[in-house]
Amino acid sequence: MKTENFYPVILAGGRGTRFWPLSRKRRAKQLLALDGKRTMVQQTVARLLPFAPADRFWVITNDDSLSEILRQLPRLPKRQVLAEPVGRNTAPAIGLAAFLLLQSAPNAVVGLFPSDHVVANEAGFRQALKQGIEIAAAGENIVVLGIRPTRPETGYGYIESGAAAGKGMRVRRFTEKPDAERAAAFLAAGNYFWNSGMFLWSARTLTNALREHLPRTARVLEQIADAFGTSKFEVTFRRLYPRCENISVDYALLEPRSAKGEGASNIFCLPADFGWNDLGSWTALHEHQVAKGHPLDGNVISGSGNFTLDAADNYIYAPGKFVAAVGVRDLVIVETEDALLVTTRERAQDVGKVVKHLDQKKLHKLV
Amino acid sequence: MKTENFYPVILAGGRGTRFWPLSRKRRAKQLLALDGKRTMVQQTVARLLPFAPADRFWVITNDDSLSEILRQLPRLPKRQVLAEPVGRNTAPAIGLAAFLLLQSAPNAVVGLFPSDHVVANEAGFRQALKQGIEIAAAGENIVVLGIRPTRPETGYGYIESGAAAGKGMRVRRFTEKPDAERAAAFLAAGNYFWNSGMFLWSARTLTNALREHLPRTARVLEQIADAFGTSKFEVTFRRLYPRCENISVDYALLEPRSAKGEGASNIFCLPADFGWNDLGSWTALHEHQVAKGHPLDGNVISGSGNFTLDAADNYIYAPGKFVAAVGVRDLVIVETEDALLVTTRERAQDVGKVVKHLDQKKLHKLV
Repeated sequence: MKTENFYPVILAGGRGTRFWPLSRKRRAKQLLALDGKRTMVQQTVARLLPFAPADRFWVITNDDSLSEILRQLPRLPKRQVLAEPVGRNTAPAIGLAAFLLLQSAPNAVVGLFPSDHVVANEAGFRQALKQGIEIAAAGENIVVLGIRPTRPETGYGYIESGAAAGKGMRVRRFTEKPDAERAAAFLAAGNYFWNSGMFLWSARTLTNALREHLPRTARVLEQIADAFGTSKFEVTFRRLYPRCENISVDYALLEPRSAKGEGASNIFCLPADFGWNDLGSWTALHEHQVAKGHPLDGNVISGSGNFTLDAADNYIYAPGKFVAAVGVRDLVIVETEDALLVTTRERAQDVGKVVKHLDQKKLHKLV
Repeated sequence: MKTENFYPVILAGGRGTRFWPLSRKRRAKQLLALDGKRTMVQQTVARLLPFAPADRFWVITNDDSLSEILRQLPRLPKRQVLAEPVGRNTAPAIGLAAFLLLQSAPNAVVGLFPSDHVVANEAGFRQALKQGIEIAAAGENIVVLGIRPTRPETGYGYIESGAAAGKGMRVRRFTEKPDAERAAAFLAAGNYFWNSGMFLWSARTLTNALREHLPRTARVLEQIADAFGTSKFEVTFRRLYPRCENISVDYALLEPRSAKGEGASNIFCLPADFGWNDLGSWTALHEHQVAKGHPLDGNVISGSGNFTLDAADNYIYAPGKFVAAVGVRDLVIVETEDALLVTTRERAQDVGKVVKHLDQKKLHKLV
């Protein structure tokens, strides 16, 4: 299934504070084996290896995660693992990869993949990706993998689709996280999809779009790409990259492009249904694992053993310990060597506030 | 305040499974520093040292706790720390101490003290004990320290008092744990007190009572006491003690004695108010510590540090760990090297069921 000219770019620069206390500055969410034996970035790469050999992968990460990424992905070419000197959101990260690829492989089809999501149905994923690559390779097209929504989720961006086009459909509009009422309307309408953050386009289309919609940043990225392979690359990268605009690919490229109208924008959505989950919180992980394993009473417990009595729908992570849960419901308990998190499924989204507190108190060892 | 002829007998044979996972077979409740820096048995001894030198103390414990008791109480005479070969409840344990003392100190006033309760007001305790020793020394009297009830507790035995007698009152009746309705009536009546399990009587009165109410066990205990100090003691103790009836001092002696009527029984209650708490569960410990320390939002958290957000009335024990509690209420979380307990204040009384499960599953390392 290897597809000539297909180059996966893995975005691995996030921090994932909502998985504290397991996630830390130097052990970001994508570097954890939250679900399964391999880490999430390792799973992301493994999922794409049927499409491209290891030497075609690029990874954009940051200084905190670099050494761990290199350790976890030893087969990838080290020079293609780039650590941003500062975070500048997705548009510059993606743009840099595109300009670099344009030089070395002018006909490259670039696939952009977040490294901290999970996919339950790998065969479904491969099918969607194959179709997406074909559309992206066919011209000035931008392809986004859309996920058929299963609930009125307010935490995701939505894609409004329009006319059918081959195996996909044209994109009418990108919509940021909606409120509950709009999310319910989107779900009912049937032509809205969750934005998976997975995009496919040729390096040429992507660099052209950057030049058009984000010209200043495009010029900075071109300069950096020009230095690649020379002794000055590191210095140039570190000096110039901070000058890029701090903006997401959605805001910078997709929304202005889609404003041209669904006929002119050439943005396509491939609606897919491959058990995607962005694991936005401990609660999302809990739900993902309940859906996968159907555990007794909805309790997902990691430990050396456990005993539950009148306990249901809890997520408890305490590796190496015997866990006893009595008369508790909807709790999220996570224990590491130096920290213990005690919260609920409902409040797990606020775990980032704990990290904010620790940052403020300069409790560096704990973040 | 040393009182001639006063001999404290410490009952330290309990297991205290409701404090699992901190309490274990070889680390029973009384051997833990649940409240304060010293363990509960150490606190019990320290509380009594103003009344008697260390060489007048006796301790009744069991094989599982023996070595730890000796380690924690190095000043006590080793030969006066006795390990029951099997548990036989309080009547035989107390009786053995009485027969042993009758031989070595015929005028001994024996004080019986559970080792797993806490006392907040030490001065109040000393005052009550002083008065109790005086009454017990004055003749064929039995003195019980009664606790003024502060709530309709259904977990304790009650003492119904009658006519005033000096600084105490005569005891009319002992009542086992009442149901909620009766407990409320007892609280309203005003002449009911909690049975603290602390008793005072002369060795002669106690041994006479045993001979009268428990004659078979009394004969066994006399035989064991006769062997004390000889090379045959250990063997005799281990062989004969299991023949004692398995019965509490309340059932065996106090209830039949009080049935003689409050004038004839010579049982006296000293109502006292010294912040007594039998710490029957994690919830009781939590309440005791809240009453003592008035912590913010009722959270009692043991850890290397903590951050709470919308969290109230939780007991969390995770020594050495930073604890973050977000949006949780009324939880009891206790973490040790090999186990994690997750329950609620309401259900903490069921922790014994966890231990029962572990016993059944033969998970010996965990009990």
